[in-house]
Amino acid sequence: MRIDIISIFPELFGPTLSGSMLGIAERKGIVEFHVHDLRDWAEGKHRTTDDYSFGGGPGMVMKPEPFFRAHAEILAQDLRPATTILMCPQGELLKQPLVEELATCSRLVIFVGRYEGYDDRIRTLADREVSIGDYVLTGGELPAMVLTDAVTRLLPGVLGHDASATEESFSWGLLEYPHFTRPASFEGLDVPDVLLSGDHARIAAWRRTEAIRRTAMRRPDLFETADLNDEEREFARSLLEDLKRSDDR
Amino acid sequence: MRIDIISIFPELFGPTLSGSMLGIAERKGIVEFHVHDLRDWAEGKHRTTDDYSFGGGPGMVMKPEPFFRAHAEILAQDLRPATTILMCPQGELLKQPLVEELATCSRLVIFVGRYEGYDDRIRTLADREVSIGDYVLTGGELPAMVLTDAVTRLLPGVLGHDASATEESFSWGLLEYPHFTRPASFEGLDVPDVLLSGDHARIAAWRRTEAIRRTAMRRPDLFETADLNDEEREFARSLLEDLKRSDDR
Repeated sequence: MRIDIISIFPELFGPTLSGSMLGIAERKGIVEFHVHDLRDWAEGKHRTTDDYSFGGGPGMVMKPEPFFRAHAEILAQDLRPATTILMCPQGELLKQPLVEELATCSRLVIFVGRYEGYDDRIRTLADREVSIGDYVLTGGELPAMVLTDAVTRLLPGVLGHDASATEESFSWGLLEYPHFTRPASFEGLDVPDVLLSGDHARIAAWRRTEAIRRTAMRRPDLFETADLNDEEREFARSLLEDLKRSDDR
Repeated sequence: MRIDIISIFPELFGPTLSGSMLGIAERKGIVEFHVHDLRDWAEGKHRTTDDYSFGGGPGMVMKPEPFFRAHAEILAQDLRPATTILMCPQGELLKQPLVEELATCSRLVIFVGRYEGYDDRIRTLADREVSIGDYVLTGGELPAMVLTDAVTRLLPGVLGHDASATEESFSWGLLEYPHFTRPASFEGLDVPDVLLSGDHARIAAWRRTEAIRRTAMRRPDLFETADLNDEEREFARSLLEDLKRSDDR
């Protein structure tokens, strides 16, 4: 996969893209990162990329021309079909199924804005608009890194254990079960006996139960789409009823 | 505000915390960032911070001792009361009201994990567990940066225009209205006439209408908590009905 990122702060991406998993994935040849400075396509002595908002109001708006020029030139650098993604708070909320879909693309071009937002005409260039969550950030740089990290770790060959990519939170549509490591007893807090039992069937059942319990307590909204059998769904329902009863008291 | 971040990859935070808005906020003395290497509190020649998961399974788990030791020592470095936040996919979903709440704290201590997850006993140290979204990332570094950015920009004195912090997506509980800047006509795409009219009342009404329209098309779930008057709520309802009708065809 090739990922192009267009931003006015290309220097922010350095350590994240070269460090750890992302850097290893690139050195293995699984992914190529190209971070572009939007100012290279801006005009004038100051290479201005933003301007006042028509109709007034505080804050600046990203100008259309630099993105249009950058997009055309960057698309032409590689013949693989590209999916263009505009990072913005008005986009589709990023969730794991969208990450999985984007991980099948051969090329992503990611637009990163700052300030109040984009001139709305820039949106006509994008195949998708993506938001990483319902909060306000200074710019789209961190969201672009989040998207890049989430997608890259799903590419074949990136994670050492293939199982690690799937056996995690959200893979069953549930929150992850609790993990414990050594020491078995620490500061008066003990690891649950079952995990030390060596009984793999009991351990698997405990983990599944605890994943359901944690989801009931913290994110009951996830049950709507979770992959549960009839017995588990009944267990989830009874947990939610108990929680509701103790809330009502 | 003082923000302490504890991670095994402290070098990933450099450009984000020193660049742009966050760097300016720190140089103005509004916020102090302290990024700590968890390995400083790990033992042994290899300063190991992770270990196998009791009960088996792929992936490694963050050990409890380094976080317990780091937490005690870092809390003692400053007498301000601290809120300890553990970044993890099982946490409360970050949304703007939680950001606003955290922005009132005098001190945040942020735990950043990697690998499969944390030994569950580490959670006993945290006041809150926070997730930035329902997707899987390599580690908590980017989520910690996202939280830091979102919180810092709300601290008094950080943003130039006070209005910019509030007059944005999610401030009314709606998506932001479309923005346009010069040129008024570009690649056959024209700026809506109303924005060039100079009629501030009409512009304000148009923006409000377009924010409702965009929210109806993209994120109708936001209407549940949006701040709308009766007329606007009726308008939103009729938009949603129209959209449903055209979907049904």
